[in-house]
Amino acid sequence: MTTYEQALEQWRGSNPPRHYLSIADLNLETARVALSLAHAMKRATHSGQELFRFASPTALALIFEKPSLRTRVTLEVGLYQMGAHGVYLTQNDIQMGKREAVMDIARNLSRWVRGVIARVFLHSTLEELTRFSEVPVINALSEREHPCQALADLMTIQERKGDAPLKLAWVGDGNNVCHSFTMLAALLGHEVHIATPDGYAPNASVIEQARQLGSQSGGQVQLTHNPREAVADADAVYTDVWVSMGYETEREARMRQFQAFQVNEDLLRLAKPDAIVLHCLPARRGEEITDAVLDGAQSAVWDQAENRLHTQKALLALLLGD
Amino acid sequence: MTTYEQALEQWRGSNPPRHYLSIADLNLETARVALSLAHAMKRATHSGQELFRFASPTALALIFEKPSLRTRVTLEVGLYQMGAHGVYLTQNDIQMGKREAVMDIARNLSRWVRGVIARVFLHSTLEELTRFSEVPVINALSEREHPCQALADLMTIQERKGDAPLKLAWVGDGNNVCHSFTMLAALLGHEVHIATPDGYAPNASVIEQARQLGSQSGGQVQLTHNPREAVADADAVYTDVWVSMGYETEREARMRQFQAFQVNEDLLRLAKPDAIVLHCLPARRGEEITDAVLDGAQSAVWDQAENRLHTQKALLALLLGD
Amino acid sequence: MTTYEQALEQWRGSNPPRHYLSIADLNLETARVALSLAHAMKRATHSGQELFRFASPTALALIFEKPSLRTRVTLEVGLYQMGAHGVYLTQNDIQMGKREAVMDIARNLSRWVRGVIARVFLHSTLEELTRFSEVPVINALSEREHPCQALADLMTIQERKGDAPLKLAWVGDGNNVCHSFTMLAALLGHEVHIATPDGYAPNASVIEQARQLGSQSGGQVQLTHNPREAVADADAVYTDVWVSMGYETEREARMRQFQAFQVNEDLLRLAKPDAIVLHCLPARRGEEITDAVLDGAQSAVWDQAENRLHTQKALLALLLGD
Repeated sequence: MTTYEQALEQWRGSNPPRHYLSIADLNLETARVALSLAHAMKRATHSGQELFRFASPTALALIFEKPSLRTRVTLEVGLYQMGAHGVYLTQNDIQMGKREAVMDIARNLSRWVRGVIARVFLHSTLEELTRFSEVPVINALSEREHPCQALADLMTIQERKGDAPLKLAWVGDGNNVCHSFTMLAALLGHEVHIATPDGYAPNASVIEQARQLGSQSGGQVQLTHNPREAVADADAVYTDVWVSMGYETEREARMRQFQAFQVNEDLLRLAKPDAIVLHCLPARRGEEITDAVLDGAQSAVWDQAENRLHTQKALLALLLGD
Repeated sequence: MTTYEQALEQWRGSNPPRHYLSIADLNLETARVALSLAHAMKRATHSGQELFRFASPTALALIFEKPSLRTRVTLEVGLYQMGAHGVYLTQNDIQMGKREAVMDIARNLSRWVRGVIARVFLHSTLEELTRFSEVPVINALSEREHPCQALADLMTIQERKGDAPLKLAWVGDGNNVCHSFTMLAALLGHEVHIATPDGYAPNASVIEQARQLGSQSGGQVQLTHNPREAVADADAVYTDVWVSMGYETEREARMRQFQAFQVNEDLLRLAKPDAIVLHCLPARRGEEITDAVLDGAQSAVWDQAENRLHTQKALLALLLGD
Repeated sequence: MTTYEQALEQWRGSNPPRHYLSIADLNLETARVALSLAHAMKRATHSGQELFRFASPTALALIFEKPSLRTRVTLEVGLYQMGAHGVYLTQNDIQMGKREAVMDIARNLSRWVRGVIARVFLHSTLEELTRFSEVPVINALSEREHPCQALADLMTIQERKGDAPLKLAWVGDGNNVCHSFTMLAALLGHEVHIATPDGYAPNASVIEQARQLGSQSGGQVQLTHNPREAVADADAVYTDVWVSMGYETEREARMRQFQAFQVNEDLLRLAKPDAIVLHCLPARRGEEITDAVLDGAQSAVWDQAENRLHTQKALLALLLGD
């Protein structure tokens, strides 16, 4: 079993990132170490122990320009379990870039906290934070990526399916969650098949990056507009809401265009019989996923949600560890 | 003096509830144990000690669909004193039932926290939470009940008047606070006289329940529209605002109809000379209660507010105790 | 080096205040002790230690009627580092004076927390809180003063310039920050030159108070409408936004009237060559201060922001210390 000290040593020996804005900040070694530590931390927490606690009271800033349940609660609870404290700051509290320049907020926070975790409208806000922050900056969701989510996704796949290369299907919107999932899955050697309606494919530069990340381990990415093709013989089927935060005005158009991409029992039948179903939640039951699938025996979504806690703890313990 | 271990043993031997949505979740034994522990915890805290602390960092979710001063602060402070942490979630943060199904929120939170405390618009939201939560759910106010408040009310009465059966008067709106107070007072053997304007009587099914809860200990409930009758020779006089959160549109009509139900010096003179005055606060000074009464020698409202802290700590220590 | 025990003894022997609403609550001895402890606490924190921790879990209320970055984060982090917890309450949560009378909020909070820290629209709200609070009340910004900011300002000046009397320039709006800075600087024996546009001079009664505070130590205050005169040969040049929170409607008029009061390289050249630049932040880059000055070698604003943390910790440790 991995100890924190072993993990930290491996992490530090593998060209670790200073900030965590994108899956591209990881390499095969650091990704494996983070996930391995997350598994160990989960086992420890379940048996009432913690693998890592900060030696002295450690505060971080948790900036949320958009609302959050999972990210907010898992970060705040995870920090608390490790003997740290997250100062929760909403857009109303600090009005980044409006009441104060992002660069000045970065300089200020660097004087008081050991890390800045931010959910932002624009990925460029995170990049601006990293340019001026003297402490690690962590992406808690931007319009481009959701790299904390991807760690939980791949941890869940490892729990259920082990480490061998798999066929993984993404069905629906080629959004930020899709981006980070695809990149991390490719990095770890999986074959990712992404089925989106025309016009909703993931960002081409992200796919390019994912393929590069996969080159070392044999990871691959295939794009299609046919959900049945993506799901055929897949080991895992992943979907997300069709109308993400910020796209509410496109709601009706999207509902029509995504119709055929619903993850329901018919579609799931095309996957391997023991395929698992993933969803980053919140789910719109009856839209992108049916009750029968979300609540069914193949659904791994509650474990996936739980794993947000353990993966983020592992990541923070490695990025900020003493 | 009660120790935590003794209280926990008695609690566990008395068919304790898993969740705490209603006074009806208590029986005579569990109610007595909770109050007895609250008294002991208050004494301990006043002398700089804590009777109970969680063995490991314990997080709970504090969901508030409506604003709160007393409930919020006493929960957050009480948890902190016991070595736990409340993650404060507003409606804006999580939008229960809108951004995400209540059942999914319950399933998610169960993976990260040891309990869910919620102030909700609809009692049915709490019931939905309990159906899907794997951890205790606690009612921090619904339109039907305020069972955390009632524990503080009865603790305050015990402090001032001991354990013998008393005549207790409720004057004003037969609201959620009235419901829980009446049920718990009846359960503990008191005679509750409720004076409300016509049309503002407490829920008939709640009164039925209160009478059943009182059958073992001799507790009784009387309804009247005459405040002088309710207050005559009473040991305690309890009132609450005439316009609760959510009823602001009825303000003018209510002000007229409740006129005769003001708790002022004239009315209070009808009670026993040493009767105490209760109010769950916030008070609208000059409406349901006069300055002279709220600030007078018979007012127990500040102790009552303080006792929110101690009773909730006792309840949580029993519901969640190791 | 100052120990906490030494500082507390000196503080208690120097007629210390119970509350901290204004610089006028300090005298020369208490001001010096607070700053001296702040320097010692900063050194300790930088070397991974804390000079003071509360013996038992200590909770305080943090009330913010207006948004805040620096005050909020430094208070929450500082309390956490000292083993205390701030319950963050926004105007939306508690609606002071609207949902509940300020006096009742004071009485309630006194039962649960060890101190009340409040950022308010009206200074009179703080005065009302102190009248009814049984625990210390601390001003975290009112329209009249910002005494927590002033401690950080003077600490920064001491760090860079030592304790000898200096010429200090305030350039811009004679606002709440100017008030507290001027009073504390005068108390400590400095010569403060305040340059404001006509109509924006600091409150006359505050200046009167500042001069009285300075009488013991030789502190002086000069008012002018000529920024060049104020800055000439100054050891420090301090400015603040031209449009403070609450004055947004006057924006255009103010922009015209403050034009000549911009702290830019031209103006700064008139000060001593090693003069430092102060700003309480947030800054409007290009309005009251240029990028070149804010980001230049003479800028001490990031240290000044950091010192919010250390000075508030020192103040709280002295006001609430066991």
